[in-house]
Amino acid sequence: MLTDFSARWLPILEEEMRAVLAGQDAATATHYGMMHYHMGWVDASFQPVSLPAGKRLRPLLCLMACEVVGGDAMQAVPAAAALEILHNFSLVHDDIEDGDEMRRHRPTVWKLWGAPQAINAGDGMFALAFAAMQRLTARGVSAERTLAALSLFTETCVALTEGQHLDMGFEQRTHVTVAEYLRMIQGKTAALIGASVAIGGLIGGAAPGVDGALRRFGQEIGLAFQIQDDMLGVWGDPAVTGKAAGNDILRRKKSLPLLHTLNDDAHGLAFRMLLEQPELDAADVPEALALLAAAGAYEYALQQMNSHYAAGLEALHDALGDNAESSLLWATAQWLMQRKA
Amino acid sequence: MLTDFSARWLPILEEEMRAVLAGQDAATATHYGMMHYHMGWVDASFQPVSLPAGKRLRPLLCLMACEVVGGDAMQAVPAAAALEILHNFSLVHDDIEDGDEMRRHRPTVWKLWGAPQAINAGDGMFALAFAAMQRLTARGVSAERTLAALSLFTETCVALTEGQHLDMGFEQRTHVTVAEYLRMIQGKTAALIGASVAIGGLIGGAAPGVDGALRRFGQEIGLAFQIQDDMLGVWGDPAVTGKAAGNDILRRKKSLPLLHTLNDDAHGLAFRMLLEQPELDAADVPEALALLAAAGAYEYALQQMNSHYAAGLEALHDALGDNAESSLLWATAQWLMQRKA
Repeated sequence: MLTDFSARWLPILEEEMRAVLAGQDAATATHYGMMHYHMGWVDASFQPVSLPAGKRLRPLLCLMACEVVGGDAMQAVPAAAALEILHNFSLVHDDIEDGDEMRRHRPTVWKLWGAPQAINAGDGMFALAFAAMQRLTARGVSAERTLAALSLFTETCVALTEGQHLDMGFEQRTHVTVAEYLRMIQGKTAALIGASVAIGGLIGGAAPGVDGALRRFGQEIGLAFQIQDDMLGVWGDPAVTGKAAGNDILRRKKSLPLLHTLNDDAHGLAFRMLLEQPELDAADVPEALALLAAAGAYEYALQQMNSHYAAGLEALHDALGDNAESSLLWATAQWLMQRKA
Repeated sequence: MLTDFSARWLPILEEEMRAVLAGQDAATATHYGMMHYHMGWVDASFQPVSLPAGKRLRPLLCLMACEVVGGDAMQAVPAAAALEILHNFSLVHDDIEDGDEMRRHRPTVWKLWGAPQAINAGDGMFALAFAAMQRLTARGVSAERTLAALSLFTETCVALTEGQHLDMGFEQRTHVTVAEYLRMIQGKTAALIGASVAIGGLIGGAAPGVDGALRRFGQEIGLAFQIQDDMLGVWGDPAVTGKAAGNDILRRKKSLPLLHTLNDDAHGLAFRMLLEQPELDAADVPEALALLAAAGAYEYALQQMNSHYAAGLEALHDALGDNAESSLLWATAQWLMQRKA
């Protein structure tokens, strides 16, 4: 069911995104070439390549939400494209800000073309995400509804930068609370997933109240999704994730399991001393895992994840009533919670 | 007349920008603090300061254009704020991309808080510029007109990134034509000034055709303004500009006078050899100025500037007929062309 939906809509989404990111003339070909490279459409010489695309989770959620409230998903295609372009813009800038040299097994945009051009290419994508949103009216969406969708979209852009601000700030601090962490992932991950569902519902004509419940569904699922990501970063199977065992331990990433352990009365100090060693390598991972286990970090993260997942399903029930469980949104939430990488 | 207009509208504009950039909670205070610092409202410790503001040229043009076509400028205040915030966002990112450590006699945002946070604070301002535009409806601007203004605004954001892309590319190249240069400043400077006037006219209810002519006025004045800037960068009086004599020569900036001389048949090669010296300092300025003079760079730039200025005034005449010469827009164009710094 999910596969059928993706197979039907991904080519339409892809075409819309290519139209938005097309560029106008030869003089700025490199500007758009960098965007196309990041999207996985071309190689570093701007020759077409065929790469496995990302999950396209956000646009698919948007299209599903439009359909589930009785709308024509074709009308939501510009918003779906905008959400995916926005997500990709944020990755281009995150890679610069975090100094990450690889993404999806290829060098990042800044690594190839330098930070100045990469910052600017990201800005171009950011602007074009707004251009994508404005194509809604050409699909017959009313001016009022387009503006309502734009308002949600803009709010989400602001939340993304707030989340990223907090995330970068955490790296400089020794003490971060779980509440601060949840506020960060609310901005950095959950806001955009929530907006994806809410904007789809809005365009599809969701009744007042229903769009709010859809947004809550997306936000809760987004929180669960991020906590699951955190768990995979510590306990994921390297053969499946493609990352080193205990990857986030080695990166000293202040994710939920690590924060829980750092804040643990009995084991926090030992864990902090371990993480603050100047040289931290694979040989330290077993001891770190033992401290995480002693602090009950796995159970804690699992409980947090499940609690947000359950809250998400409950919100979906509020939105759709008895139709919730048979919906594609429900199936997508289930599918997300089963992933191993 | 101009002074009265500024005195009346600048406080209203300032209040609107402060409302848009206010921020929501203590957790993200630093994120918004960086924006407030860049706007000149606070010092590096986020304490209020009173600094001479920028010219606020773009928002004032927007408000004037709204009024000149018979609209209520109060309705255009959100757009005026959006245009100034957008302009300032682009300065935050330009400073990072160009490695500039000082702006308006203070350290730049990236210099104080590091490039990662500065990129992200710029992104926040970019998003909030769109949020500002969406406040138009609260002032009674119709959804259709708000969307039309947003469309122009978004197009301009894209043009800004194209212009910056070209500008950065020029630094890596030995040969740049005057046509390529004009395409660059069209995106980097003229597009936003054109949009400022056009958006004001649009909100004020300009008749079809009039908004196009207003936009042309702004674009041509923008081109003239940038060429004038280029001339001041070479021949400006250090006592007035606050910059070194021949500042843009020392920076090897591919501005119009330098490009004209580099592309000159008789003097281009000598000028190129001079500029490409590993060490270029004040002692080289007289020889550079002699080559610029021999190639007729001053007269060429002056003629180009005057030609765009005249085209701008002609477009304003197309827009306003006999009312053009007595308008504030005309007076502003005249005032701009008289500046010495």
